[in-house]
Amino acid sequence: MTRPLKVALLGCGTVGTAVLRLLDEQAADLTARIGRPVEVAGVAVRRPDRHPDVPAHLLTTDAHGLVTRPDVDLVVEVIGGIEPVRSLMLAAFEAGKSVVSANKALLADDGGELHAAAAKAGVDLYYEAAVAGAIPLLRPLRESLAGDQLRRVVGIVNGTTNYILSRMAETGHGFTEALAEATELGYAEADPTADVDGFDAAAKAAILASLAFHTSVTASDVYREGISAVTSTDVARAAEIDCTVKLLAICERVGRVGDGAAGDGDGDGDSVAVRVHPAMIPTAHPLAAVGGAFNAVFVEAEAAGQLMFYGQGAGGEPTASAVLGDLVAVARNRVAGTAGPGVTTYAGLPARPIAETPTRYHVSLDVADKPGVLATVAQEFARHGVSIATVRQDGHGDAATLVIVTHSAPDAALSATVAALREMPAVRGVTSILRVEGLS
Amino acid sequence: MTRPLKVALLGCGTVGTAVLRLLDEQAADLTARIGRPVEVAGVAVRRPDRHPDVPAHLLTTDAHGLVTRPDVDLVVEVIGGIEPVRSLMLAAFEAGKSVVSANKALLADDGGELHAAAAKAGVDLYYEAAVAGAIPLLRPLRESLAGDQLRRVVGIVNGTTNYILSRMAETGHGFTEALAEATELGYAEADPTADVDGFDAAAKAAILASLAFHTSVTASDVYREGISAVTSTDVARAAEIDCTVKLLAICERVGRVGDGAAGDGDGDGDSVAVRVHPAMIPTAHPLAAVGGAFNAVFVEAEAAGQLMFYGQGAGGEPTASAVLGDLVAVARNRVAGTAGPGVTTYAGLPARPIAETPTRYHVSLDVADKPGVLATVAQEFARHGVSIATVRQDGHGDAATLVIVTHSAPDAALSATVAALREMPAVRGVTSILRVEGLS
Repeated sequence: MTRPLKVALLGCGTVGTAVLRLLDEQAADLTARIGRPVEVAGVAVRRPDRHPDVPAHLLTTDAHGLVTRPDVDLVVEVIGGIEPVRSLMLAAFEAGKSVVSANKALLADDGGELHAAAAKAGVDLYYEAAVAGAIPLLRPLRESLAGDQLRRVVGIVNGTTNYILSRMAETGHGFTEALAEATELGYAEADPTADVDGFDAAAKAAILASLAFHTSVTASDVYREGISAVTSTDVARAAEIDCTVKLLAICERVGRVGDGAAGDGDGDGDSVAVRVHPAMIPTAHPLAAVGGAFNAVFVEAEAAGQLMFYGQGAGGEPTASAVLGDLVAVARNRVAGTAGPGVTTYAGLPARPIAETPTRYHVSLDVADKPGVLATVAQEFARHGVSIATVRQDGHGDAATLVIVTHSAPDAALSATVAALREMPAVRGVTSILRVEGLS
Repeated sequence: MTRPLKVALLGCGTVGTAVLRLLDEQAADLTARIGRPVEVAGVAVRRPDRHPDVPAHLLTTDAHGLVTRPDVDLVVEVIGGIEPVRSLMLAAFEAGKSVVSANKALLADDGGELHAAAAKAGVDLYYEAAVAGAIPLLRPLRESLAGDQLRRVVGIVNGTTNYILSRMAETGHGFTEALAEATELGYAEADPTADVDGFDAAAKAAILASLAFHTSVTASDVYREGISAVTSTDVARAAEIDCTVKLLAICERVGRVGDGAAGDGDGDGDSVAVRVHPAMIPTAHPLAAVGGAFNAVFVEAEAAGQLMFYGQGAGGEPTASAVLGDLVAVARNRVAGTAGPGVTTYAGLPARPIAETPTRYHVSLDVADKPGVLATVAQEFARHGVSIATVRQDGHGDAATLVIVTHSAPDAALSATVAALREMPAVRGVTSILRVEGLS
């Protein structure tokens, strides 16, 4: 047994604390699995006085000094955010250290530059914990499915919004009440913007799409709609058509514009469409049953077919499990004197704008209940090239409700249709619009 | 770009044919992902005349000559069975070739020896395709969860039996009729023994337990019961208590005898209990919804919590996807001049016999409908130290049905209880006995 591998821990919040505890409790197992003991070299925090449980000699405010210390082998980053983490990571790579991170925002924005820096230094950059917490997902995409062609990755990757939408369905409450409950129970942060507006899910979608399609996707390539506009009417309408409302992160490889189908085989002219928005999905869909704070990701590959990964998407312990799994991997590589496979972005696929991305809509309208209204409405869809899959008309008094589910059409055509419907004299109101996913 | 990596393919049935096709179709992608092109060096088959679609110059009957050819870098084995594959693999390792295999029977029996030989030669042995087809499962266990402590792995890992049990539930048919249907549709082989008697699932359970608990488990350590004794009454009784019957592969790390709880923290005195048998599980359990030929595996880890992996467990294309994922991994390692992490068996946990393994039973009895019968029956359970969780009594005429679900108790105590019940004068017949899993 040679000298221990030394780990620098950056950040010591919920996840960092769990990492420290597990490193201690499982020291014997980790040593056996890695082939050398792992030892904490230091813990970089902003306010050392707030961490009475961490041995004082390990605490430092000098994160840069810690990551570049000659005796440090590996860096675990659980601070989050862009800076100073980006600079710290680059400094770590330059100093020859491998990095394990849980930082979705940074990886989504600067993954390309960071991977290049790690590859240049011959070290590892692993970040399983950045997407869907404890669920082994990035390693399967990077490695297990590396011999396959991925078509779609569709996931529930944000527990806060999933909890809120689950509660709206259970209680009939609106978004505001459900958010207040989530905040009270600690499922939503004081400033819930990153979760409810879909920023968190969009960063994860960018990471998933990059790995799934061997291309470079950043958060700015991701179309993003949060759940704050989802109403109790939307949720009720979903139930009426045997659907449930979920915030989905959808990464698709799509063929040429106008084709609509997935990649056409040779891949020439393919693009990636990556989007985060609420959608109705059939209650029979495996993702529909994913409740509360759980995460699940559905993958469609050409040869493997349909796969699903399910588990806890957040929390100190589950996230720490993912961090430690990566830590064992980079430590084994260090012991073997090598680095794991990097990511490849050779496909260089362009991002397709949402306007050109094929989607399906559910539209509920209040209309005057008189002959010819359905024909007029149907004509408006046809005029925009949107084909209707199903329509249901419920009369009540002199009014009627039309519930329409479309076939797949470019998103721009669907939103133009809805805009035109709003202007029609026969339409008294558009009461619910949501995209629909997972219908066959 | 240096010279191509050369692959020897052993076997060319459904999976081998799919591997060849995907290697050809995805050549450009594989080259980009690996960093070097991959080329088929030869295909070893028994009867070359039966493979008109494979270029004749690649076909050979000399498998040993092929795997030891100096220009061969990697070996893909999809023959199956123990010999000659075992000898061929050992020859490949000795000649410095990495091996990708889909061979559950061989890995379950001789995994220890084969891993040791691969490690000695400094080459890789990967076999994701051996368990649950396309579902990324072994790599997550070996790597993603390497920083965690696994408690249980419970899976539906045999599609044939799952199809048969699903059909029994849907149609009310007995085992024999459902098997006949499965055979006719090609879901069961002409000789279905390996599937219906649980041998296939037991081999997979041995592999899963070995990786999950870092110990050595072989197929002979696995308690095994097939589904041929499952009756339509069992299936109907399951439905009555909101359960469904599944053939489960269950791998548990358990504490000291008499403890019954999972590992007690320090792991001293822990053992592994690995078993394959039909069981009732609640319809609300995630595994209950896994129908037809699909596979799913549920994992419980100390920090990660509950995880589930779902997908296609068999078939040429899905299995080939798993094989190619491994092929990319070993090829990347070869390009990097290294080998991936081997498996560790340092835990050296003993296998706990089924008699001592805590389980729960469902028991349905036909009894005489007179006062005191329930008390007498309950006394028999108590006499064997078995605690009853729920009991339901349905009278009809002078007879009654007792449906009893027990709490957890050593399996031997439960089977002794059932044997004693059969001898009781008040018990006219034991109409259904099945273990129950997944109740809280």
